[in-house]
Amino acid sequence: MGFVASWLCGEIGAMPIITLLTDFGARDYFVGAMKGVLLSANPDATIVDITHEIPSQDIQAAAFNLLACYRDFPPGTIHVAVVDPGVGSDRRAILIECAEQFFVGPDNGLFGWITEREVQFKARELTNDKFFRQPVSSTFHGRDVFAPVAAALAAGVSPDEFGATIDRIRTLQPLTPQTVAGGLQGSIIHIDRFGNCITNFTGEQINEMRIAAGAKLIVGGKAIASFRRFFADPSCADDDLFIVPGSAGFIEIAAENASAASILSARRGDEILLRDGDNG
Amino acid sequence: MGFVASWLCGEIGAMPIITLLTDFGARDYFVGAMKGVLLSANPDATIVDITHEIPSQDIQAAAFNLLACYRDFPPGTIHVAVVDPGVGSDRRAILIECAEQFFVGPDNGLFGWITEREVQFKARELTNDKFFRQPVSSTFHGRDVFAPVAAALAAGVSPDEFGATIDRIRTLQPLTPQTVAGGLQGSIIHIDRFGNCITNFTGEQINEMRIAAGAKLIVGGKAIASFRRFFADPSCADDDLFIVPGSAGFIEIAAENASAASILSARRGDEILLRDGDNG
Amino acid sequence: MGFVASWLCGEIGAMPIITLLTDFGARDYFVGAMKGVLLSANPDATIVDITHEIPSQDIQAAAFNLLACYRDFPPGTIHVAVVDPGVGSDRRAILIECAEQFFVGPDNGLFGWITEREVQFKARELTNDKFFRQPVSSTFHGRDVFAPVAAALAAGVSPDEFGATIDRIRTLQPLTPQTVAGGLQGSIIHIDRFGNCITNFTGEQINEMRIAAGAKLIVGGKAIASFRRFFADPSCADDDLFIVPGSAGFIEIAAENASAASILSARRGDEILLRDGDNG
Repeated sequence: MGFVASWLCGEIGAMPIITLLTDFGARDYFVGAMKGVLLSANPDATIVDITHEIPSQDIQAAAFNLLACYRDFPPGTIHVAVVDPGVGSDRRAILIECAEQFFVGPDNGLFGWITEREVQFKARELTNDKFFRQPVSSTFHGRDVFAPVAAALAAGVSPDEFGATIDRIRTLQPLTPQTVAGGLQGSIIHIDRFGNCITNFTGEQINEMRIAAGAKLIVGGKAIASFRRFFADPSCADDDLFIVPGSAGFIEIAAENASAASILSARRGDEILLRDGDNG
Repeated sequence: MGFVASWLCGEIGAMPIITLLTDFGARDYFVGAMKGVLLSANPDATIVDITHEIPSQDIQAAAFNLLACYRDFPPGTIHVAVVDPGVGSDRRAILIECAEQFFVGPDNGLFGWITEREVQFKARELTNDKFFRQPVSSTFHGRDVFAPVAAALAAGVSPDEFGATIDRIRTLQPLTPQTVAGGLQGSIIHIDRFGNCITNFTGEQINEMRIAAGAKLIVGGKAIASFRRFFADPSCADDDLFIVPGSAGFIEIAAENASAASILSARRGDEILLRDGDNG
Repeated sequence: MGFVASWLCGEIGAMPIITLLTDFGARDYFVGAMKGVLLSANPDATIVDITHEIPSQDIQAAAFNLLACYRDFPPGTIHVAVVDPGVGSDRRAILIECAEQFFVGPDNGLFGWITEREVQFKARELTNDKFFRQPVSSTFHGRDVFAPVAAALAAGVSPDEFGATIDRIRTLQPLTPQTVAGGLQGSIIHIDRFGNCITNFTGEQINEMRIAAGAKLIVGGKAIASFRRFFADPSCADDDLFIVPGSAGFIEIAAENASAASILSARRGDEILLRDGDNG
């Protein structure tokens, strides 16, 4: 009981966690400046880098990586995500309350998959510039808008002080595969550093029954029918490409000690058909 | 008032923040060793990575990145900067008090732009080896000298215990542009990961009046006369290169969705002339 | 005395430090997910990244980097190291108590050099899945097994609750050089980002007496007899390659402002003979 109790009660009274996810890279001062602003407001804030190596201006890669890990953070966590090709234009800055967490960043689709999955969410436009770093630059809202808003939120400012609620936010193409004749139509939504191709099929969609019935993934004209429980599964020797349940909750196409993406010449966005076995 | 008060009072009683900026990269144990030394002395220290991806031995890149963000950190922050080609030689190890902050590192120009801007500063040579990790290696003063001095400083040791004051520190070429016939002579002082070319002209030097009068930047024989308020400014369509106010406080030469440095074949150190409009 | 006392007493009462060392890279959500799991259990945990840029599946590089810095961390530190090509297979997950610290990760040799050096250690297999994140994926034990175990350990769970002790763990080739005719046989155990070749000879093995007697390192048919105290040692001008005492406690082969590994076409694992002077 002791451990379970501390697990459940751990976050009570603690300063909220602020995560950062950007395309700023590690070479420049950008991330340091954001942290300086956060710590100037909240010296006790716990700041966690998710990644700053999102490819430049790649909103979808940012959306995937945040989707893949936000549920691992405790209630009250404030996620600041800044991949922001429209910085300085009239794109909106937003705050979303969702899944007992907060999401702060530009309104460009970054949070679309999370709100699609959670269904219930409240969004606001960040308009109250008394919470911004002054003067607000036209090029670095990560430092001047999103970081100070996150710091204020962590300090206990009520969400409704930042701006009025809005009905809709920008979204990406739907995360949910489409039913088509003979199966489900999905796509590669991410390729990781090992070359694993993450699809938008969940484990529930490619379940035991489907596998037993001979389901296949068709990608780039190639059929993949080998299912492994894990990467180094010794029961499967001869398949160069195989399907594994990935750690982000999606099915992945992988290769043992090789890049599946290279073998397939696959790119993100490539369509995948999950063909049911009885459609041979 | 609640928020303003917490913003102002946030740092009272908190452990000082220690920032790290090095050319050690992310592949090796170097940064981990520095953090181990810091946390052995101060388990509650808040350590912030500014960057460890300064190009190897590139003192000027380190100087620029620290210059661009130190003011975003709260009073009392201790900045440890280690780009140190002379490690083990007789180059001095120094501690600078400046702008209500501390700067610890080798005396090789790294802090020269900050002291040029702040004007008021006090510098000391770090000579009291009772604060060093023993034995002091000849190759890794980040771990053996600078980190333990920063940890002691964060623990409340008075600056004068580390060594005597010194009158001069090493500097870089001046940050301030020079007045020449027909304008101001400056240079590209940094190129960021997006290929934006950061100049040493400040927003005040290229002000509204100058823009209205037709000022131009001349770089590599090319004249750039388009001024944008922000990167995606819709009022400016046809210019491939343009000038924007950058987030570090300097004017930058940028290109929309492209690398200005590549278009210009520009390198750091390239001279730039700000030609006033009436010198057409 | 004040400083010495705080140095010694600093860790009393503080939350243990949890370090992370992986081959997950900085591009994906993997490290963020591990930190989310750690902070969900222990919002006050101090998490330190040693590196996430270990080359993919390179157990020896991970072993070296952890070996090089674990002693810089205070007693009670929990090191989580995840370079895990066998994830999902029957390779064991282990917890090692050693040097007043904890080591958590897969049993694949990662901790072999530390236990070889420390001699005294206690190892356990992690079998108690009540401490794991459920459901345990087959591909991401960093998040599902190692991070939650480290979090529980930091929260005060006794090591014996995680599983029974085991007698042996997987090791790497021995770290200690072998005595051969005319000297000692060692190897290059790591090449750092500057191209310095770290050997498994310690400073004690290549001591003053040996240097005075004309000892040489023979690598790839080339003899290196120049010893420098530090990289920029002005007393040694003409040598392109030289030997320096490295910061990890081992002798390194280096080149001034150049990559020794490139000059030597050296690769990790290359054998090196330390030839005593009287065997010239």
